Amino acid sequence: MITVPKIVILGAGYGGIMTAIKLQKELGYNEANVTLVNKHDYHYMTTHLHMPAAGTGNADQARVSITRLIDEFKIDFVKSTVVQIKANERKIILEDGSLSFDYLVVALGGEAETFGIPGLQQHSLRIRSINSVRFIREHIRYQFARYKLEPERSDYLTFVVGGAGFTGIEFAGELADRIPKLCKQFDVDPKLVKLVLIEAGPTALPGFAPELADYAMKVLAHKGVTFKIGTAIRECRADGVVLADGETVKSATVIWTGGIRGNRLVEQAGFETVRGRVKVDAFLRAQEKEHVYVVGDCSLVTGPQDKPYPPTAQLAIQQGAACAFNLVAAIRGEAPREFKFSGKGVVASLGKGEAIGIVLGKTYKGGKAAVMKKLIDLRYLYAIGGIPLVLRKMRL
Amino acid sequence: MITVPKIVILGAGYGGIMTAIKLQKELGYNEANVTLVNKHDYHYMTTHLHMPAAGTGNADQARVSITRLIDEFKIDFVKSTVVQIKANERKIILEDGSLSFDYLVVALGGEAETFGIPGLQQHSLRIRSINSVRFIREHIRYQFARYKLEPERSDYLTFVVGGAGFTGIEFAGELADRIPKLCKQFDVDPKLVKLVLIEAGPTALPGFAPELADYAMKVLAHKGVTFKIGTAIRECRADGVVLADGETVKSATVIWTGGIRGNRLVEQAGFETVRGRVKVDAFLRAQEKEHVYVVGDCSLVTGPQDKPYPPTAQLAIQQGAACAFNLVAAIRGEAPREFKFSGKGVVASLGKGEAIGIVLGKTYKGGKAAVMKKLIDLRYLYAIGGIPLVLRKMRL
Repeated sequence: MITVPKIVILGAGYGGIMTAIKLQKELGYNEANVTLVNKHDYHYMTTHLHMPAAGTGNADQARVSITRLIDEFKIDFVKSTVVQIKANERKIILEDGSLSFDYLVVALGGEAETFGIPGLQQHSLRIRSINSVRFIREHIRYQFARYKLEPERSDYLTFVVGGAGFTGIEFAGELADRIPKLCKQFDVDPKLVKLVLIEAGPTALPGFAPELADYAMKVLAHKGVTFKIGTAIRECRADGVVLADGETVKSATVIWTGGIRGNRLVEQAGFETVRGRVKVDAFLRAQEKEHVYVVGDCSLVTGPQDKPYPPTAQLAIQQGAACAFNLVAAIRGEAPREFKFSGKGVVASLGKGEAIGIVLGKTYKGGKAAVMKKLIDLRYLYAIGGIPLVLRKMRL
Repeated sequence: MITVPKIVILGAGYGGIMTAIKLQKELGYNEANVTLVNKHDYHYMTTHLHMPAAGTGNADQARVSITRLIDEFKIDFVKSTVVQIKANERKIILEDGSLSFDYLVVALGGEAETFGIPGLQQHSLRIRSINSVRFIREHIRYQFARYKLEPERSDYLTFVVGGAGFTGIEFAGELADRIPKLCKQFDVDPKLVKLVLIEAGPTALPGFAPELADYAMKVLAHKGVTFKIGTAIRECRADGVVLADGETVKSATVIWTGGIRGNRLVEQAGFETVRGRVKVDAFLRAQEKEHVYVVGDCSLVTGPQDKPYPPTAQLAIQQGAACAFNLVAAIRGEAPREFKFSGKGVVASLGKGEAIGIVLGKTYKGGKAAVMKKLIDLRYLYAIGGIPLVLRKMRL
């Protein structure tokens, strides 16, 4: 009797799904048993969630059924929630069962980092999943409907975005585009609606050149966004936020985009972590647990000057491919390959037809950057699902 | 200098708009100054509100801009809210001004009658205006979104309708049609959704023959509606209703359709009223205030055996026309005409393609009744706005 190694992949986000797809391509018949575990039966594109959250896009546009991406003759799929990772016992406890493994890929994704700000966990909304963004969209619409029944409560029409990083800026851009339509739909005077973007750091979009960040802020300000830069949120309450400068912004809607940390399950599993992220070796393996690979938001990979790369989709996708390569090598007794991140650039959308970006060292603004963003999306869809997926999901 | 009599019409619902439209047709140049006062700049069709409330129709479909219905050279329109009626002083106090009149038409519409049931006023929603039904639609969607974030709270998916009269039945029919679509949109198992219709009286649809009421209940039960007939609501709470039989139905959504009373402003103005309705004379005038006409839900008109007619759109429309006739007669010093209600029949919709009705003495069920309902709507739109309005609003 031949026993083939068992590979379990936890999570079907960017890192997990890419690992699965690459393994499915590379592994020969009966070389390994691969099981992909995911909470939902779909993969979703986190970098697209700001659109359905604002209501400018549909949630279905941001997800793909997992069975469309994997070949079920080659990879088993288990829809379940992971409860515990027992790395040394080579066991995964699911909410409704358990799985054993020889090799594990931890690709569970991140969680919002609230930096201990009081009330933020309970009272803010996060752009983190299909369910959460559907909720945000409905919550925003609900405030317009509530306001019409209680016209003295114009605070229902104030929307606070915490964090002017990538997600905060992209979401604010979409919501600013959406507000005039909501005003029309609910007969609300647009002058009453406030969209406030609050950032504790000294600048918006810290990853971008100041010239691009300034451009982004100008575009959003023109769309009606008010910025409070260099102002920390001191407390989040059910009826708004208190800022470090003492000001209170009354609002029933606080969207927190201020930070990402690794999944708590990873900390609980006894890995050595920094803010929930496992510092992996050059081959994406956990220290002293060489049968466990970690990719995506749960992993910590350092670049030049030992500075950690920010957790992005791009990083997770490249890690997934590298992880699959190294898994195949491990099974075949071949040499693994060191992971090297190759940053192609970043593009941040600013709502319809507007974006900023640095791609392959060149900066882009406005319409050209928006087209670039579309191309990046297209490239990803093609990578995971080929032409059919591009045709089904892409809005050009 | 000629002084022409001043007519003020309060409210642009069925009764008020019909009075205005008929006056505009009948009055000659400089025969009277007519001012129509309404809270909103649109007229809406209350009998259509169950559709936008459930989300099966659009709120805009149920309203028409007042300026499209009246000729502004003939009738002044004031968008304001009435604060007080001073019948003897011939003065109307608005929230932002005042109007004097020689003749007044009170057509302010009804309010929900909660029969003193504790908590019903605070915790239930009512199908009473464009704003309230937009809120109901959003509230229902919001519960689906909330449930996805708190899957242990299946009570978010229980929807209670209080009252199995006309509005309760029509709304339940629409919502039952809508639920499968919401389940699909939010990835909710339809088996978890409950739609409970609670009626204190011994039967649903008391105005209809038992055979038709039974048919209606069968149609709705088939669509998934649970009936509790002969069961009063003892208390309404933020988290559901307590019934007279001791049962508690957990729900975040209680839509109350159990009764209509006249507008409180009419009581406060010192008219003799029964549940907020003014008992008018044969010419639709208030007792001892012959310069004040009352039409629609604020009026009480009795038919055979001195039994009051239920407040319906049909009654209000006929009253509006009769009121205009009598106003013109009064101005010209001609004899007024007694109001006689001519009941053409009633049709209750049960969701898509299903209805029951009695029209001109003949009973209808199913598809034929649904077509009859469309014809009634068409007739009304034609009466107030002619062919152009029919073409703009009708979905055949």
